[in-house]
This record gives sequence, C-alpha cells and structure tokens, in this order.
Amino acid sequence: MQPIVDFILELDKLKAVTRKVRPIGLDRYENSAEHSWQIALLAASLAGYAESAVDINRVIAMLLVHDIGEIDAGDTMVFVEGGWEQRKAAELASVTRIFGLLPDGQGAAFLALWKEFECGETPESRFAHSVDRAMPVLLNLSNHGQSWRENGISYERVVRRVEPEVKAGCPALWDYLRDRLEEARHQGFFGA
Amino acid sequence: MQPIVDFILELDKLKAVTRKVRPIGLDRYENSAEHSWQIALLAASLAGYAESAVDINRVIAMLLVHDIGEIDAGDTMVFVEGGWEQRKAAELASVTRIFGLLPDGQGAAFLALWKEFECGETPESRFAHSVDRAMPVLLNLSNHGQSWRENGISYERVVRRVEPEVKAGCPALWDYLRDRLEEARHQGFFGA
Repeated sequence: MQPIVDFILELDKLKAVTRKVRPIGLDRYENSAEHSWQIALLAASLAGYAESAVDINRVIAMLLVHDIGEIDAGDTMVFVEGGWEQRKAAELASVTRIFGLLPDGQGAAFLALWKEFECGETPESRFAHSVDRAMPVLLNLSNHGQSWRENGISYERVVRRVEPEVKAGCPALWDYLRDRLEEARHQGFFGA
Repeated sequence: MQPIVDFILELDKLKAVTRKVRPIGLDRYENSAEHSWQIALLAASLAGYAESAVDINRVIAMLLVHDIGEIDAGDTMVFVEGGWEQRKAAELASVTRIFGLLPDGQGAAFLALWKEFECGETPESRFAHSVDRAMPVLLNLSNHGQSWRENGISYERVVRRVEPEVKAGCPALWDYLRDRLEEARHQGFFGA
C-alpha cells in the first residue's frame, strides 16, 4: 500500500503546475491537474465524433496521465518553438521516476499509456491529442482570447498549431473551431 | 457540437469550488476538479485491492463526474452533520441541469454514473466511495492534519466517517489508514 500512497502524494504536485489560460471568471491560472480532469470529460462527451472508432476508456486513462511529466519538467505553452526534444526527454525522465514509485505492473501500464499518447500513432492517442489541443482554444474563445493576448499569439499561429492535430483526431471539432476562430479574429481576440 | 462545448465550459466552474484541504505545499485550498482527477488515478492504482472485482473504467468515469453537482450546490465537508438530504437534492438538481446540456444519450449516461455513485450499491460505487473518502485523509496525514486542525475535527470523528466506507470498498486501504491515523493521533494532528 505504501508505494501507491507515495505515488498519489507525488501526483499532488501537478496541482501546482500552472498553464497560460485562466479558468473562466477566475484570476488565477489553470493548473495541469484540473485541466486533465476537464479534457477526460471532453473526450467522453465527444467520443462519437472521433475520426476512427476508439476505446474511449483508454483515451480517458491516457488523458489522466498525459501531463504527469510536467511535475519535474513544468508546462510549456504549445506555441513555444524549438526545444521540444529536450522537454520531451525531461518529461520522459519525470514519468519514469514517478510511475517507478508504483509496483511494476501498474507503473508499466501508466508508462505505456503515457508513451502511446506521446507517439500519437493510434486512433486513441490521435483523438486524445485533438481534445487536449482544443480545450485551451475553447477557454480562450470564452475568455476573449486571454492567453493569446497575454502571450502575443496571432490568429495564424493558433490555426497552424491547432488545425492539424484537432482535424486528425476529431474533424467535426475542427469544423466547429475553424468558424469560431474566424469570428474571434474579427473580434480582436489575438495578440501580435 | 455547440451543446458539448456549452457543457464543457459549464464544467469549468468546478475549478472554482474549493474544499477544506490544501494541496501539499500550497497556500490555497484544493478545488473539486483537481480532486476528481487525483482520485481517478488513485482508483486506477488501487484497483487490485478492491473488495470485489470491479470494472475499473466505470469507477474512473464515476469519479470524474461525482462532484459535478457541487457546481450549483457547493462542496460540503464530510464531517458536517445533518442537512444531507437537502444537499443531495440540490446536487441532483444541479447535475440534472448540467448533464441536460448534452445530447440525450450522453447526458443520460453521465447522470446514470452520478446516480450509481450516490446510491453506493454496486461494487464499483463502493470502491469509488472508498477512494473518495480516503484521499483527503492521505493529504491530511501528509499535511500534519491541516484541515482537521483548521476545522476542529477529532480523531474519533475521522474514524467514524472514514472507516465504514473505506473498509466496505477497499479493506486493505483501511488497514493502512487505521495504523496511520493512530500514529497521527499521537502526533497531535487532530482538532477538538
């Protein structure tokens, strides 16, 4: 029992990893733990729109663990260019350490989910990526582009970073976002 | 697509519902969204210790939705005596409203999970309850009894509110907690 307790208390640190978007109506920044909860439910709600049939339970499990590497490596905004290989290596080291706290079988199962998400080659991981990528866009569309404006992110950069992954995993969600992003451009929700 | 977007943005409000325990090392209180994420992973890690065999995917789904009624009703500490029927009615009204934002099939599926958790009659819901009840205890054991001391909660009250539910769903977890609670008593982690 103690290894599982050590693991779950280590996970508490993800509540302190902050992202760039603020929850609607709150002054503080979102953290990666509550983000993981929200996208698990977004995936469950959107399952019928996945590009191919998916095992939604594996998608949910993947989304629950996908940000745990940020406990040691921190969150990096999706618009940061360069340095991704180093960050991914740091995140792999982090999840290897943290999942290594668990008994072998359980730790290996979480690590396999984390790697499947990172590789992005299965229908489940592609769908998981589309949901993860879309959620901050939905919050920004509600927030008048708060994190885009604070960080000088242009309409073109958002489309470039969001379209391929959302379209690949959930085409109907991209169709929706494309129109909303176009409206947001006219409303001045972007930076730069 | 718009109903799903409306639903997921409504869920953002759970990030603003605060509980009585603080994440380890942080000054702020925990919110119910990040709590839901953490207990989903605690359930996944503890699945082998469930009192009866469980469908762990249903347990996880249940834990992800179980606190959504707090969006309208607020969080109530487990040690508050009385008034539970009114609070449960308020939470049911809240989830009926919020899941009602979704297309029928999906909203009904979430509502069924929420009700299964509330009834606590299936092996899955009993295990889910044990995990939900144990998590703030684990945080308090790490936090020198922070929420017990801040709210004047005695050792006896903790045992009375925690033992039956944790034992019913996950006996090995109760065995662990019993010994740790006894140590905590000698360390002065309790209020009142």
